[in-house]
Amino acid sequence: MKDFYIADAATYENAVVTSYFLLSQMSARDKKSGGQYLALTLSDRTGSFDARMWDEFAESLATCTAGCYVKAMGRIERYNGKFQITLQKMRPATEDEIDVTDFQPATQYDVDALWTELNGYVAGFRNPWLQPLVRSFLDDPILGPAFRSAPAAKVLHHAWIGGLLEHVVFLLRLCARVAPQYADEVDPDLLMAGAILHDFGKVRELAWKSSFSYTTEGQLLGHITIAIRMLQEKIAAIPGFPDRLRILVEHMILSHHGKFEFGSPKLPMTPEALVFSAIDDLEAKMQNMRAEFAKAVESGKQPDEVTDFSRSMERPLLNSKAYLAGES
Amino acid sequence: MKDFYIADAATYENAVVTSYFLLSQMSARDKKSGGQYLALTLSDRTGSFDARMWDEFAESLATCTAGCYVKAMGRIERYNGKFQITLQKMRPATEDEIDVTDFQPATQYDVDALWTELNGYVAGFRNPWLQPLVRSFLDDPILGPAFRSAPAAKVLHHAWIGGLLEHVVFLLRLCARVAPQYADEVDPDLLMAGAILHDFGKVRELAWKSSFSYTTEGQLLGHITIAIRMLQEKIAAIPGFPDRLRILVEHMILSHHGKFEFGSPKLPMTPEALVFSAIDDLEAKMQNMRAEFAKAVESGKQPDEVTDFSRSMERPLLNSKAYLAGES
Amino acid sequence: MKDFYIADAATYENAVVTSYFLLSQMSARDKKSGGQYLALTLSDRTGSFDARMWDEFAESLATCTAGCYVKAMGRIERYNGKFQITLQKMRPATEDEIDVTDFQPATQYDVDALWTELNGYVAGFRNPWLQPLVRSFLDDPILGPAFRSAPAAKVLHHAWIGGLLEHVVFLLRLCARVAPQYADEVDPDLLMAGAILHDFGKVRELAWKSSFSYTTEGQLLGHITIAIRMLQEKIAAIPGFPDRLRILVEHMILSHHGKFEFGSPKLPMTPEALVFSAIDDLEAKMQNMRAEFAKAVESGKQPDEVTDFSRSMERPLLNSKAYLAGES
Amino acid sequence: MKDFYIADAATYENAVVTSYFLLSQMSARDKKSGGQYLALTLSDRTGSFDARMWDEFAESLATCTAGCYVKAMGRIERYNGKFQITLQKMRPATEDEIDVTDFQPATQYDVDALWTELNGYVAGFRNPWLQPLVRSFLDDPILGPAFRSAPAAKVLHHAWIGGLLEHVVFLLRLCARVAPQYADEVDPDLLMAGAILHDFGKVRELAWKSSFSYTTEGQLLGHITIAIRMLQEKIAAIPGFPDRLRILVEHMILSHHGKFEFGSPKLPMTPEALVFSAIDDLEAKMQNMRAEFAKAVESGKQPDEVTDFSRSMERPLLNSKAYLAGES
Amino acid sequence: MKDFYIADAATYENAVVTSYFLLSQMSARDKKSGGQYLALTLSDRTGSFDARMWDEFAESLATCTAGCYVKAMGRIERYNGKFQITLQKMRPATEDEIDVTDFQPATQYDVDALWTELNGYVAGFRNPWLQPLVRSFLDDPILGPAFRSAPAAKVLHHAWIGGLLEHVVFLLRLCARVAPQYADEVDPDLLMAGAILHDFGKVRELAWKSSFSYTTEGQLLGHITIAIRMLQEKIAAIPGFPDRLRILVEHMILSHHGKFEFGSPKLPMTPEALVFSAIDDLEAKMQNMRAEFAKAVESGKQPDEVTDFSRSMERPLLNSKAYLAGES
Amino acid sequence: MKDFYIADAATYENAVVTSYFLLSQMSARDKKSGGQYLALTLSDRTGSFDARMWDEFAESLATCTAGCYVKAMGRIERYNGKFQITLQKMRPATEDEIDVTDFQPATQYDVDALWTELNGYVAGFRNPWLQPLVRSFLDDPILGPAFRSAPAAKVLHHAWIGGLLEHVVFLLRLCARVAPQYADEVDPDLLMAGAILHDFGKVRELAWKSSFSYTTEGQLLGHITIAIRMLQEKIAAIPGFPDRLRILVEHMILSHHGKFEFGSPKLPMTPEALVFSAIDDLEAKMQNMRAEFAKAVESGKQPDEVTDFSRSMERPLLNSKAYLAGES
Repeated sequence: MKDFYIADAATYENAVVTSYFLLSQMSARDKKSGGQYLALTLSDRTGSFDARMWDEFAESLATCTAGCYVKAMGRIERYNGKFQITLQKMRPATEDEIDVTDFQPATQYDVDALWTELNGYVAGFRNPWLQPLVRSFLDDPILGPAFRSAPAAKVLHHAWIGGLLEHVVFLLRLCARVAPQYADEVDPDLLMAGAILHDFGKVRELAWKSSFSYTTEGQLLGHITIAIRMLQEKIAAIPGFPDRLRILVEHMILSHHGKFEFGSPKLPMTPEALVFSAIDDLEAKMQNMRAEFAKAVESGKQPDEVTDFSRSMERPLLNSKAYLAGES
Repeated sequence: MKDFYIADAATYENAVVTSYFLLSQMSARDKKSGGQYLALTLSDRTGSFDARMWDEFAESLATCTAGCYVKAMGRIERYNGKFQITLQKMRPATEDEIDVTDFQPATQYDVDALWTELNGYVAGFRNPWLQPLVRSFLDDPILGPAFRSAPAAKVLHHAWIGGLLEHVVFLLRLCARVAPQYADEVDPDLLMAGAILHDFGKVRELAWKSSFSYTTEGQLLGHITIAIRMLQEKIAAIPGFPDRLRILVEHMILSHHGKFEFGSPKLPMTPEALVFSAIDDLEAKMQNMRAEFAKAVESGKQPDEVTDFSRSMERPLLNSKAYLAGES
Repeated sequence: MKDFYIADAATYENAVVTSYFLLSQMSARDKKSGGQYLALTLSDRTGSFDARMWDEFAESLATCTAGCYVKAMGRIERYNGKFQITLQKMRPATEDEIDVTDFQPATQYDVDALWTELNGYVAGFRNPWLQPLVRSFLDDPILGPAFRSAPAAKVLHHAWIGGLLEHVVFLLRLCARVAPQYADEVDPDLLMAGAILHDFGKVRELAWKSSFSYTTEGQLLGHITIAIRMLQEKIAAIPGFPDRLRILVEHMILSHHGKFEFGSPKLPMTPEALVFSAIDDLEAKMQNMRAEFAKAVESGKQPDEVTDFSRSMERPLLNSKAYLAGES
Repeated sequence: MKDFYIADAATYENAVVTSYFLLSQMSARDKKSGGQYLALTLSDRTGSFDARMWDEFAESLATCTAGCYVKAMGRIERYNGKFQITLQKMRPATEDEIDVTDFQPATQYDVDALWTELNGYVAGFRNPWLQPLVRSFLDDPILGPAFRSAPAAKVLHHAWIGGLLEHVVFLLRLCARVAPQYADEVDPDLLMAGAILHDFGKVRELAWKSSFSYTTEGQLLGHITIAIRMLQEKIAAIPGFPDRLRILVEHMILSHHGKFEFGSPKLPMTPEALVFSAIDDLEAKMQNMRAEFAKAVESGKQPDEVTDFSRSMERPLLNSKAYLAGES
Repeated sequence: MKDFYIADAATYENAVVTSYFLLSQMSARDKKSGGQYLALTLSDRTGSFDARMWDEFAESLATCTAGCYVKAMGRIERYNGKFQITLQKMRPATEDEIDVTDFQPATQYDVDALWTELNGYVAGFRNPWLQPLVRSFLDDPILGPAFRSAPAAKVLHHAWIGGLLEHVVFLLRLCARVAPQYADEVDPDLLMAGAILHDFGKVRELAWKSSFSYTTEGQLLGHITIAIRMLQEKIAAIPGFPDRLRILVEHMILSHHGKFEFGSPKLPMTPEALVFSAIDDLEAKMQNMRAEFAKAVESGKQPDEVTDFSRSMERPLLNSKAYLAGES
Repeated sequence: MKDFYIADAATYENAVVTSYFLLSQMSARDKKSGGQYLALTLSDRTGSFDARMWDEFAESLATCTAGCYVKAMGRIERYNGKFQITLQKMRPATEDEIDVTDFQPATQYDVDALWTELNGYVAGFRNPWLQPLVRSFLDDPILGPAFRSAPAAKVLHHAWIGGLLEHVVFLLRLCARVAPQYADEVDPDLLMAGAILHDFGKVRELAWKSSFSYTTEGQLLGHITIAIRMLQEKIAAIPGFPDRLRILVEHMILSHHGKFEFGSPKLPMTPEALVFSAIDDLEAKMQNMRAEFAKAVESGKQPDEVTDFSRSMERPLLNSKAYLAGES
């Protein structure tokens, strides 16, 4: 846990602080007076600022790398109206010193609570094959923890630590609500298994160690194909897993985007795939809507104004509750 | 209520029956022996067959018109392996003699029960303006009954008598399930009011007296614009109806198709419009799916086969329950 | 009428001027010497410049709001090569002190002459219902004047005060020219009535008090639906207005964009709607062309060069007259 | 000129007639009684019927070819309720015996009058280069007559003999009406020259000797490119023709379809090209409309019904005049 | 190997033949004289004809099923000008009695020669991992033989037995030609491995036992995903297979359609994927072209005529060699 | 040949140099001390820098024009960390003093070698008409040299001096490789003639004297139509050139873009056109790929990273060779 966040610099003006930062940029420059100094940019979840290291920076320069975490000590100062830090020490941080949520946006929900809720849904499965299948993903020592921390996207909806888990739990709630409407056609366990597994490939498609990005494997294969491979490995370890059930789960993963142009190789052809694809699309859009409403409030829009044009939704949006409240 | 249906002809072979029919075609032809006879086609909900009237048909010919209902008496006979009827009498039926559900496909659900369920939802509204607004549609002496009997489409989903009411009630159930998931953003009364009113224009866009077709007004204006006009009339009769609420209801009607290419002049911009548009699309697709599954069974497909290619869904479909059941 | 325009600042260097301005931005800042001053931006149709108010600005700050009109007195000075004004007084302007054409681009044509021409066309109508219908719009104490001043768009063609009226009159001229070609199919009164009413909804879709923008109602409903509502109100006040004529007028409004993707809920299905949609599209494109030619001249392009790529037309354009003239 | 038309067969029952026909199909078949007979289909502008030639058909079979014109003599008979002809003689027709308008649909207008009107427009050109250019096309001993008789399309609008000339004259009338509206931007001579030349390539793209079809050259190159070649040949014969004027005329031909997907290699970039493209599109659509209205009347539609769905217009259409007349 | 083919029926008129057939349809019908008979349709690669079995058909009816192969003996007769067969015996054929190429269109090339050529390319691989990978597919006791006999499509290019192998070998030839052009960027072994494996999933996507169709798994997953699964199994059996090489092979399979709308979840991003996608598209189109040219000759088109409009290519085609030859 | 390139300024600090430059911008400005000076920007292939001329610049100002080449003498100096030049003399350069490759990016290949290779292919033609046709282009005193120096595009692939020739030679190599695969359908001479002529119109569509741009004729007509005109002129000079061969060559030019939306008025309909269109597309994409790989290396990307998103290819790309090499 960091003690000092960049957004609080004003409070620490002229004080010496010690904290962890993401080293975004670093270069050695010539001093006018001869010799060199280090010009750096440090950042955390709350912002970024410039740093300078005037002397004895050789070891720091040799051991720290842009894009990695560092532990640094220095004095906070104001220069040309902006805060910066003059460093006295800087060394690479070890992995266990770092809590990634100090550096990246994270879900506003309690991850343990989301996790417990998710496991509760799985515990309720009555299908004898789907429960062990899903558990083999969740209990996997690598995939399970990755699934708890992964973002759901690089820039769009749920682009934050824990975003994938949050997205999946919200989907499961919606599954639980909608499945009874289609009790004659939809198997609720299959629907929920699809909801849990559909984006599992994102734990390898995305990288979120220091910043959110795509892995090369993710770029070349996509999270759908990666998930298909994971599924095959897990099913191979469950002797007797029915072949048709395997095909139906694969189909839900393959078709969840609902449209070819989003890289879905199949359109939803079964009731579970169709319902899930609709739910997934709705959840993503409602999350976009919430984000746009929040942005509009931040930028000082009035409640009866539409938001800025949303590029991903191809329209501006309106918070109808706020709009109605403004009438009375 | 008809006593005799065409599908039961075999039971009545050589008997004389009296019943109501839709007169689909009629023409006078030359007898080989000189003179003329009437060649007709009669139909009801269960099928159609040929009719012949050999003598004294002048008045029938003068008073009955193709496309209208008739009352006819005649003997059922078999000719070339097919049943037909030789008429002795035929006259136009009066409107109150006819129950349109004898002649057209009708919802399999109890219309009174659907109507009661619908009214129950409205009774639960807490918004002081939306309840009277919706009631003014339902209680309208012309619109209300039309809404109870209208089909929801000419050829696609819910193309049967009572299909519009059935579609709306299923949507309301889904609204009741989904609205709590979005309690922070979605006003459930507004969502349900939109669900009830969104397709109300179809009672004037479609004609379903003898067969399902579009009215000329429906072709030129579309049910969305027709509903906007109805809404304006109803709101004008509710003094003080808030302007912003009116705009939000109109917006739900305008945007419910969700895409410009379906003739929606607006994309959904509010939480209620977005949720409703998603629900409406899902319900229509699930209904299509059920119809395709039924058709596949009728045409003798095996449960592990996909259906024929569905033109409206642009894919074949698979009944996953039947498919799984076929594996064990 | 303003006496002083910002573009004329050079003429007034060091003089004290009093005039009306749009207050675009205002903030209080710290003086280096302690205390505060007001930093403002003032604008009118001809440009914008910075303003400073060093003393006694408390009341100005309390009563004036960014986005509103003000009356201000101050001295014109040059600073860093740019003109600015040092204010001595500033107060909100009352509505009747302001002529909106001082602050926004306005049609180059005489509005009274356009209005007279428009009324002349209406006076020539021979259809007994369309003349009173159109007159009820033009004579409406709110809609009529709004129609005279509204722009025809926020950013594209005719985005200036009076642009809507100008656009409609040019369309009427084209109607008068083209209608005789299709005398067998096209009713000229219906064509012209459609031309006058098709964009009337823009007087509520757009706001143009201080800058051009969409109203929230405009965003949620669009000018087509707004016009349908206006039409319904006006027709309700004309007893006996024929229903089919009402439907044909509505259809012209609904279909005038000619394509679903522009938010037209219907494609043109009648001769009048088809001709009008073609004319409207041509007029808008020719106006875009004129604007691009003017911009190319301003930016110093040679007459034999094509204009910059026009985003709305998806191509560059060429002034063929200038191009030919350059050859000889 | 034919004396006998197939549509008049009933009048000639049992009479012997001699006339010219298009031989659509011919095959020798076995008689039940041994030996062979000729089974043929003959057609003219008014329809087609079966023909039989029972004896001495060897020479006819050897000299006549399906797809060619024949002179035939035979007796008109009724068989199974349909008329047919039993041939006694049949030989190939020579070219000068045939008037192609006896066999194909032809313009309802007087071709000489259209031609005179066209030449009148050209006589009014004031541009010293465009008049000789257009005249060199019209006076060409091959192109000129072909232009007078060519259809404007294979199946769509103006698909009849003389259709191209008719289409061009109607366009010229519209040019004459619209050009003054854009007097500042549009050169009327250039506009009209483009109108006359834009589809000239169709005289080689289409073949209309016996039936309407595309030539192989037409399929591979298209009428736009063919017209560009013609233009180049004609301009080469006019010494000093200005290069820029040549480019502007070529551009009008290249861009007249207005959209890439119709095979237009350029979008209209000049005022003349833009106006012409709009006019051409409108004229084609209005002609389609007239054809659909006529078809609806023929098929017994009521005046207040919309036409069948028009595939080329992607909508049904409504004859608004008839619709209004039906109300009173 | 069949001794008798349906196309040769005329040669065997009134003879008794014994052969294998595909039983396409079978139903019992009432004899006019009382009792029943069997009405059947039999087919082979060369056509189909009616069959009748008048007596003692009980066991045949009980044991044979429509859609299966039968062995039958009967007399060839002509009836109403068409040949049919009157059966004396019919029993189900065993699998090893049937050579599927007797019943379905098959490649015109020697399958053994194609197979040898294919193996020759693989033998030339220098990459130490790709050769064993490809061999593990070819040597698989189920996949290998299936790959030799599979068609490459249900209806489009190479829709015949052996079509997949034929398509792949032609692709390998083109790979061998094109790879040297891009020697700096393209690894020829990777390119060829992708060519061999890209459509391997079709051996499970398609069924071609009696007629060509999609399997349900094929419909739900598609051949791309099926191939990805096969690949994973094969690679798992090759210890140490490099992960990046695995990703590159997977990417070639995922991206080979080159467009999202064809169900490719990825666009080609590597040189090998890009080259392969272009080659695959070209080969398929050239094969379509050959098929259209052959069809045009069969239907009696002249060499200088274009073919009928090809739906899959969205254009008519022209055999340029024949066209040129026709000029001299 | 220039002696001094701007990129080498550091080597010449404080030295006086004389060289040729492209004068990109020039304006006279007020000195603070009174009087004026010239502020200029000079550029060459290696970059651009500021220039100042403090005295006696009247004649330079009068005779030199922005966009033209100049000869200048001055001293290289460093100012604010950047190099600039203080001019003593500047005059317009004559055309023969300038080697355009000093100022624009140029092919990395030897133009003479490319030209020789091209001519070798032509020498191998066996078709008696295509060789003289192609030679008449290459030997044309204006077109030939222009073809040697033209870029192949303004901004996309091969946008450098000599790019068109380079592109064509690479295409010919690919033609030579691919044609034998389709020996039954493709005439290699026709394929190669199409390859040489397909983009010849670019020598008039593009201007590349000082910078790469479109000519007005190029904008209005496009290189396809320009090439058609060139072809017509050349063929007219070869008596007896077969008409069908002419049509096939024209068709290759018209269809080479392969898609309507790229301004191709025809889709490829012959084997040669189809093969060429595929080859041309592949070559352009491979060249784009090479450029993206080079850019990624320059910008410091790791070999196992994908490139930035390529706008023209609509995807990021991966250098598979570098990626694989990075694994071991």
